[in-house]
Amino acid sequence: MSGSDEVTRRAWAYLSRVAEPPHTALREFVEAEGPVDAAAAIRSRNVPAGYAGLSSATQARARVDRGAEDLEAAAAIGARLVTPDDDDEWPGWQLWGLRAADTVERGGPPLALWVRGTRCLADEVRAGIGVVGARGSTSYGEHVTGQLVGGVVEHGWSVISGGAFGIDGTAHRAALGSGGSTIAVMACGIDVDYPASHTALFTAIARDGLIVTEYPPGTTAARHRFLTRNRLVAALATAVVVVEAGRRSGAANTAAWARKLGRPLGAVPGPVTSAMSVGCNRMIADEQAALITDAASLISLAAPDGAGGPNGGPVRKVDALSGDRSRVYEAIPGSGALAVEELVLRAGIDSGRVLAALAMLEVDGFIVAAGEGWSLNRG
Amino acid sequence: MSGSDEVTRRAWAYLSRVAEPPHTALREFVEAEGPVDAAAAIRSRNVPAGYAGLSSATQARARVDRGAEDLEAAAAIGARLVTPDDDDEWPGWQLWGLRAADTVERGGPPLALWVRGTRCLADEVRAGIGVVGARGSTSYGEHVTGQLVGGVVEHGWSVISGGAFGIDGTAHRAALGSGGSTIAVMACGIDVDYPASHTALFTAIARDGLIVTEYPPGTTAARHRFLTRNRLVAALATAVVVVEAGRRSGAANTAAWARKLGRPLGAVPGPVTSAMSVGCNRMIADEQAALITDAASLISLAAPDGAGGPNGGPVRKVDALSGDRSRVYEAIPGSGALAVEELVLRAGIDSGRVLAALAMLEVDGFIVAAGEGWSLNRG
Repeated sequence: MSGSDEVTRRAWAYLSRVAEPPHTALREFVEAEGPVDAAAAIRSRNVPAGYAGLSSATQARARVDRGAEDLEAAAAIGARLVTPDDDDEWPGWQLWGLRAADTVERGGPPLALWVRGTRCLADEVRAGIGVVGARGSTSYGEHVTGQLVGGVVEHGWSVISGGAFGIDGTAHRAALGSGGSTIAVMACGIDVDYPASHTALFTAIARDGLIVTEYPPGTTAARHRFLTRNRLVAALATAVVVVEAGRRSGAANTAAWARKLGRPLGAVPGPVTSAMSVGCNRMIADEQAALITDAASLISLAAPDGAGGPNGGPVRKVDALSGDRSRVYEAIPGSGALAVEELVLRAGIDSGRVLAALAMLEVDGFIVAAGEGWSLNRG
Repeated sequence: MSGSDEVTRRAWAYLSRVAEPPHTALREFVEAEGPVDAAAAIRSRNVPAGYAGLSSATQARARVDRGAEDLEAAAAIGARLVTPDDDDEWPGWQLWGLRAADTVERGGPPLALWVRGTRCLADEVRAGIGVVGARGSTSYGEHVTGQLVGGVVEHGWSVISGGAFGIDGTAHRAALGSGGSTIAVMACGIDVDYPASHTALFTAIARDGLIVTEYPPGTTAARHRFLTRNRLVAALATAVVVVEAGRRSGAANTAAWARKLGRPLGAVPGPVTSAMSVGCNRMIADEQAALITDAASLISLAAPDGAGGPNGGPVRKVDALSGDRSRVYEAIPGSGALAVEELVLRAGIDSGRVLAALAMLEVDGFIVAAGEGWSLNRG
């Protein structure tokens, strides 16, 4: 709880509940007066007239101070309240774009964020990719999600999504299953598991990643909250990819936020015969989203110049290779190319592992496709 | 054989064989001197020095005049030689783009075209869409080809392709099966069925469409001829769509010609897990091709302003509707939308026919998708 004493923290918790987030006037009032004085003014119904709508927005809850109880409820499940006072953890840089004038009305930055899990929020979102998509995903979408997430996690990116059924859940699970970190941004209170059947998944995310929400404990999920939640997924992500989306999909809303915030946006193409690829194909057709085929193209989208990202750029040192990647790399001749079948023989591991290693070696820039085979990247 | 007497026609046939087509200097010499004088000069080895490479290119065959025999061989299978003299049939407008300086070295306009079938070449290519793709097509690609071709044929477009296995063959068959016209552009002599197992298909195409080639009778298919053939597919088409293409595909060459000639180019996206969609997805990702999802988007590509095309624009008159389309159109309420299941009940035909009719009504602009259902297009 660096940067904030208990009185201040309770004031933040009070403010988190006193108006439905996000509320621009409330945030501006807190920024101007500080949380303790702002809370006192709202509690005593002494809100200056300059903050449009703030008095009416806080009227119903002004005298209900559950700050201490909310902090206790959060603590009971391993959660806490992170605020702009927490210099080390507040993702101020990522949230900055939400201040832009054209987005204020539909959702500025959050006032504060309830966070469940032990990791540092700022660290986890420093290099995070939003992976979102349809609730009614197909096996194709889930397969591709697993491939993409496995590849980006391997390169140190975290995976940000909305905790929902379908592509969201698949993305979180794939990140955890690949030993990576993942962040679920919720449209309900930090102590609410929505959807309920994802309770075990949320427990796993809280252990190896983070759950984040701007809604105080006990808040139920609701349609308008999904939409405001989507803006946080886009804001916290370095780039966003939509894996599957139907004709009308919540993922399209997250995609729209990504564009509004200037986040690189990608979409995975799919069969024109699949209803779950209609939205993605359309975003690509309309040049709203870049066409993403694999983890390499997704990483290029998120870190276009090869710089940025979790490692400050793709790994290039051969010395850093280990395991299958080292064996496959060593199997590639100094000049010329070899087909996969020959690499399988040389490396002495099965073709599935060789193919996986080749994909990673290509992403890392060690090798390039050459005709039907692979050769060293001399570029 | 309008526009050309028998002597002239034999001269054209002689010139068609005297150098491997396309040969820019030969074409320019014929344009300058006329076919009879040009043929006489070449035959007597009196080619002016100004025509670079012409003397050497014609040296081997100059004294072999099989013009009459070639015309007879063609006539025996219902084929003829169409030349720029045939004002009514020569597709001069379509071939004009091949004259551009940057394409001359790699293949200018054909000198003449051997054509099998009774239809008029110029008429058939006036509104033709090139539908090409991988020889090793998948069931997905073949399904989409059938959908696209069925839709464009329904709107009066002819379908131009290369007669090959895979997408080409599927496109020709779908055109014929939909009662449409189709043109196969060959990389061999007009009397050569390549691939041989497509002999029955070529017979059907010759009956209801046209087979076209710039190679004289007896010429075998060869790799360089596929490449020069591809330029004619692109040139004769109003627009070109690639349905499936692997990492390296002949279809990519046709696509490159389409771009070079300024023909609108489309590609059908596919699963990123399919090797046969790698080329299409890449063309879309690189913004070389527009993303095509259905016949409507393909027709919009070919006739972007709704004008042009076989009918001078999409049909809009309700009076023109008949059969299933009329029944389904009448089932849609004057205001609001209806789901497919309700339309099936109202129209009294099965859901497959209703869906087919809905697709066509949407293409024609009569109806629009509204939520889970369909409503009249008031736009």
